[in-house]
Amino acid sequence: MNQDYIKPDNWSIIEEGFYPEQIKSSESLFSLGNGAMGQRANFEERYTGPTFQGSYIAGVYYPDKTRVGWWKNGYPEYFAKVLNAPSWIGIDIEIDGEALDLNTCKSVSNFRRELNMKEGWYLRTFEATLPNDIEIEVRVLRFLSLVQDELGAIRYQLKILNKDAKVKFQSYLDSGIKNEDSNWDDQFWNTTQVVSEGEQAFIEAQTMKTNFETCTFMENEVYLEEAVQTAAPEINKEALKVTHSYSCSVKKGEQLTFIKYAGYTVSRNHKADALIQAARETLSQAKEKGFDQLLAEQAAAWSRIWEMSDITIEGDQKAQQGIRFNIFHLNQTYLGTDSRLNIGPKGFTGEKYGGSTYWDTEAYCIPFYMSTKDHHVARNLLEYRYNHLEKAIENAEKLGFNNGAALYPMVTMNGEECHNEWEITFEEIHRNGAIAFAIYNYYRYTGDYSYIPEMGLEVLIGIARFWFQRATFSKFRNKYVILGVTGPNEYENNVNNNWYTNYIARWCIQYTLEQLEQVKDGYPDDYERIMGHAKLTDSETEGWATVAENLYCPHSEEYNVFLQQDGFLDKELITVDDLDKSQRPINQKWSWDRILRSPYIKQADVLQGFYFFEDHFTTDELERHFDFYEPFTVHESSLSPCVHSIQAAKLDRMEQAYRFYLRTSRLDLDDYNKEVEEGLHITSMAGTWMSVVEGFGGMRIRSDKLCFAPRIPKEWESYSFKINFRNRIIKVNVSKEGSSFELEGKEEMSIRVNGERLVLTPNTVTPA
Amino acid sequence: MNQDYIKPDNWSIIEEGFYPEQIKSSESLFSLGNGAMGQRANFEERYTGPTFQGSYIAGVYYPDKTRVGWWKNGYPEYFAKVLNAPSWIGIDIEIDGEALDLNTCKSVSNFRRELNMKEGWYLRTFEATLPNDIEIEVRVLRFLSLVQDELGAIRYQLKILNKDAKVKFQSYLDSGIKNEDSNWDDQFWNTTQVVSEGEQAFIEAQTMKTNFETCTFMENEVYLEEAVQTAAPEINKEALKVTHSYSCSVKKGEQLTFIKYAGYTVSRNHKADALIQAARETLSQAKEKGFDQLLAEQAAAWSRIWEMSDITIEGDQKAQQGIRFNIFHLNQTYLGTDSRLNIGPKGFTGEKYGGSTYWDTEAYCIPFYMSTKDHHVARNLLEYRYNHLEKAIENAEKLGFNNGAALYPMVTMNGEECHNEWEITFEEIHRNGAIAFAIYNYYRYTGDYSYIPEMGLEVLIGIARFWFQRATFSKFRNKYVILGVTGPNEYENNVNNNWYTNYIARWCIQYTLEQLEQVKDGYPDDYERIMGHAKLTDSETEGWATVAENLYCPHSEEYNVFLQQDGFLDKELITVDDLDKSQRPINQKWSWDRILRSPYIKQADVLQGFYFFEDHFTTDELERHFDFYEPFTVHESSLSPCVHSIQAAKLDRMEQAYRFYLRTSRLDLDDYNKEVEEGLHITSMAGTWMSVVEGFGGMRIRSDKLCFAPRIPKEWESYSFKINFRNRIIKVNVSKEGSSFELEGKEEMSIRVNGERLVLTPNTVTPA
Repeated sequence: MNQDYIKPDNWSIIEEGFYPEQIKSSESLFSLGNGAMGQRANFEERYTGPTFQGSYIAGVYYPDKTRVGWWKNGYPEYFAKVLNAPSWIGIDIEIDGEALDLNTCKSVSNFRRELNMKEGWYLRTFEATLPNDIEIEVRVLRFLSLVQDELGAIRYQLKILNKDAKVKFQSYLDSGIKNEDSNWDDQFWNTTQVVSEGEQAFIEAQTMKTNFETCTFMENEVYLEEAVQTAAPEINKEALKVTHSYSCSVKKGEQLTFIKYAGYTVSRNHKADALIQAARETLSQAKEKGFDQLLAEQAAAWSRIWEMSDITIEGDQKAQQGIRFNIFHLNQTYLGTDSRLNIGPKGFTGEKYGGSTYWDTEAYCIPFYMSTKDHHVARNLLEYRYNHLEKAIENAEKLGFNNGAALYPMVTMNGEECHNEWEITFEEIHRNGAIAFAIYNYYRYTGDYSYIPEMGLEVLIGIARFWFQRATFSKFRNKYVILGVTGPNEYENNVNNNWYTNYIARWCIQYTLEQLEQVKDGYPDDYERIMGHAKLTDSETEGWATVAENLYCPHSEEYNVFLQQDGFLDKELITVDDLDKSQRPINQKWSWDRILRSPYIKQADVLQGFYFFEDHFTTDELERHFDFYEPFTVHESSLSPCVHSIQAAKLDRMEQAYRFYLRTSRLDLDDYNKEVEEGLHITSMAGTWMSVVEGFGGMRIRSDKLCFAPRIPKEWESYSFKINFRNRIIKVNVSKEGSSFELEGKEEMSIRVNGERLVLTPNTVTPA
Repeated sequence: MNQDYIKPDNWSIIEEGFYPEQIKSSESLFSLGNGAMGQRANFEERYTGPTFQGSYIAGVYYPDKTRVGWWKNGYPEYFAKVLNAPSWIGIDIEIDGEALDLNTCKSVSNFRRELNMKEGWYLRTFEATLPNDIEIEVRVLRFLSLVQDELGAIRYQLKILNKDAKVKFQSYLDSGIKNEDSNWDDQFWNTTQVVSEGEQAFIEAQTMKTNFETCTFMENEVYLEEAVQTAAPEINKEALKVTHSYSCSVKKGEQLTFIKYAGYTVSRNHKADALIQAARETLSQAKEKGFDQLLAEQAAAWSRIWEMSDITIEGDQKAQQGIRFNIFHLNQTYLGTDSRLNIGPKGFTGEKYGGSTYWDTEAYCIPFYMSTKDHHVARNLLEYRYNHLEKAIENAEKLGFNNGAALYPMVTMNGEECHNEWEITFEEIHRNGAIAFAIYNYYRYTGDYSYIPEMGLEVLIGIARFWFQRATFSKFRNKYVILGVTGPNEYENNVNNNWYTNYIARWCIQYTLEQLEQVKDGYPDDYERIMGHAKLTDSETEGWATVAENLYCPHSEEYNVFLQQDGFLDKELITVDDLDKSQRPINQKWSWDRILRSPYIKQADVLQGFYFFEDHFTTDELERHFDFYEPFTVHESSLSPCVHSIQAAKLDRMEQAYRFYLRTSRLDLDDYNKEVEEGLHITSMAGTWMSVVEGFGGMRIRSDKLCFAPRIPKEWESYSFKINFRNRIIKVNVSKEGSSFELEGKEEMSIRVNGERLVLTPNTVTPA
């Protein structure tokens, strides 16, 4: 943890000072993305110090088939790798023949980075003295356009402070890139064409095995003060690189401005043979608008996003900065415009967790997107799973299930499982529950039932069939049991009767049975169509009901709590507080077997069930389970603090709730887990949003009604957020004095605040 | 399973007929080895059909550092790969310009292989018609010398049957070899020198990363009928290959004989810069003796091995062939002459199970070597572990243990753990128990206590400390528990309180406490020396005793059996007989999670405990546990049938014992597991030996006395075996009529047969 790293600011992420040991972490924190592509905040100019280079294109991955050790039956064919894509940011600088490299400069001063979240750009400024004693001042601004999502732009401004000199900008595209996580010198890209055409250049490259076709492109402009320089570039074409070099003689104090328009066109959006043409069109539009107009459009586009999704916090700048950082990165990662894409746990900020989609999407991200975007965005995320139903059925078949049982993958790029650790891939089956829960949650929140007859019911049937088959009968207990699973707490593997898994399995079956009735009654045509494929019989659904009714859920009489799993009480129940601090985080200090036999909980497990199914339990029950499990929880998953923050708020333990809030919202900014250099924790950022809206705001949907129970941490003066509930926009303000609600639109609407009905008149601030 | 594959014969393994789909399996079955090196039975001449090429050098491996997926704390640095070594067997044949390749011949007839186990050679004969219509007769004999273990020899004899022709022998050494299990085109060898020197050639090559230095060498001779041909070879040197070619004109019916002396000198035995010189000396000795004398020496050396280790079986040729096949391959793999070497599960017959040493050595192999060799061989195997004690302590430290706790590796080449699956590497800790048990067993059998004060006690202390630290206290049970283990039955992972593990842990501690007392009393100097390092305090040993006395061992009241692990009764207890045959073997048909939640047992687990600690239990208890667990046992480990055969024999269930015997002894010959092409199951072959000697012969050591309880399967007329018990050689004959014993040496000795004392007079057959 490093709380002095990022300067507090309401709207920007700011780093001051040049600290080489912090370069990789800052490369993560200042990452840019626009839903279609993203980049770590690598320097444009050469840098020979330690760095983690990364450019990523949405949906582009590599199926790694390396095998090590024992191969277990049922393992997927490959392990997906997020691929470092050809780089277009490179602009090497030479001044009087000396390369600019911050690692070799005699001095670097006034180094500053700013990620302006309000307008969506990243600025880096510094002064430096080169080995040849030339003193320079640099100011580089970069953004990835939200408006034209194949385009990025860089404005690299430079002044020589102490003499006249000759400056050479070497702007390049490079497909000779590698992954950080490669074994040996694996190459993942086939470069098929390197083209230089006047002021423009293109590299066509194809991913190996997956054959994603990409064109990386650029065009440059040079200005001396205001005057455009028209000399043609010197061109250098290599096998995997094309460089356009521009040389200018510049007087002391004159400003040189180098503008680079660049980006990717990809075969997801264009015909493979039209990528260069598409790139030419993008470049010509960019040139026509020019850098300043593009930047203005960028600010306007971000303004529209913030208009709906901003959360303000008064009186606590770090908390304010934290929540905006989370909302900003969520929107950089996924904008909901393409149902083929999803939300990777590291977004466009690193290589880890190769794969785009985890249960994080359903359990954590959908509420954020439902509330801050049009509902079709959340529906797109649900459709993503519907589109993968066939593959989920195949996945279950590989593991020995049949009759249309569906097991959604733990990690996927395209519906296929692409991770191969048996304890995760084969056993962390609770993910199926989150996918069903998201369907329930989507309808509960949006009121759009149409998804269920149109698509959702088929998903539910596949999931119910899976649970039915996965449960086995224990003669010993005279109950159905679910053996050999990994729950949300991945610090337990291959356990029997994980309470969360069993509970959500039972709920899935019962919810599916209810939806079958509802669709049968309300949507007979859909029902008939679905039954046509599903061939569901009464005896099958009776079997489901029997399993659901008789599913064992472990419970301790002694502690009067549900047990995380069979045998949990056999552990040495030493709380985290009593654990020596030198042993933390245990996932870095302890071997895996030691973690497994400890009582320590990585993230909410039983409490995840209490989060999803809060209304099934009394507040007393919540309190008892929170008091039992939280003391063993190490929160070493980024997904952990948010759920605990929400529950602590509900239990009116505001100090604890606030501590968890800071941990979730500033996890990366303050580098709690000492690993931010690997990339950011994108999906948990949606949990941060939940901890404000559901935690402090107490937002719930009960019986079709929007409900709030606002609380405020003592550190805050006030906070506000906006939500889209069933196409009504409501702004919520909470201050120490009380809360108020402001409804957009034309019709009245009634909500509940702290259990009391409150009628909101449009465009009026209604105090609660 | 394929019972028609290998022709029954008392002394030879014989295959008749040319079946390309069987080539890889035969390459395993006809493998040769001499303890220092070994080879699969690949053809000398070119073969373009499917083949699995393999030559192996004892102790030579590669540390594969490939990483895939999540890397868990505590994982070893590398995964050891058994390396395919430079090949020296190659002799390509060209006749009138046409290459001999059995895959392209117009016809192949009278194809026959014989592995003569009595004399230790491998013969291949065939007739073939080449694409150019030349008809040939070939007879190739190959052996790896036991007398000079760096040397092998090939005699390749050829006649042209239908015309005069020109024959060219292209004899080569090749270091451009790869592993079958490589990812991509990984190379594991650096070839440093390719030398051709007159009639001799050498390739020096070094393994990457491990830097084992090897010299592969050859020298050839050609005879036309009896006359040696003196023309100098045509020499072709390439980067990774050297070929000496010899051309002869030969008349129809004349016999051409090509002799190749070849082998490896290695840096384990010579200075790295003296390998070629050592090879020259080996070749000159070989040439001096000549092929026939070398072959005679080979037969004599094998005769000495058989003299002591043979088991005869009358009336059941398949059983006879099976046991000799097992004894032969054990001796091909390990001869006990080098305490740096050990017994790999696949010996020199394949690449699987990268690593030389598993708990197989202690649990299965040591009894065979103790009984059929001088006791120093078994002691060498124990010393191997003593020499690795420091590394076992380091291994435990990596997993968080301290104070000299030792965890021996699951898989090792040099004392370091070299396998990385957490459920095995970190959790299959019962291996520590087998290492302690072998110390006990060595003393019990040989009466040589000296190993314990000199070395063994230190090993025992490290192991006891491990168990003491590994057990944790369960308040819930008010007992010590051992959580998160994998027992011998690897079809259960991360279980709590595996009975076998807990039982042997308790025994280890108690045995160590006893030995501490014994050494203190009997070997005070050793005791002082050991305590000097170990710093063992009374309070530490009291702690051990407390854990041992209070270690929980799961038991079922309902079935009155010890439970394999906590929760075993939660499973669907469907016996193997009731499992559809199409589902077998489950390790090929089922996904890993399905195997884990099934009740099926891969190999003896609770019953392994009853095997090791037979005297702790009544025969009734054995019977009850056998009846409970055997019906769930799928015997998909090669180590399974032997233990069950011994216990079935003890329970006087001779039909079942015989069935298990056939399964263990002919596992590879009849390819029970449909995988013999991957290599042979070497370590389980020692279990086959046990199933005759301990199973049918009923040999036990009780209170320092050698005991027998002979039984005979109804299929057999008689059987006999010889053992070395405390340097006394006793031959045991068992027939349907009864048993008799013959003692070598000069002094009388008393044994017990079926509980009755029997005095053996030397050199007299004493009936029981």
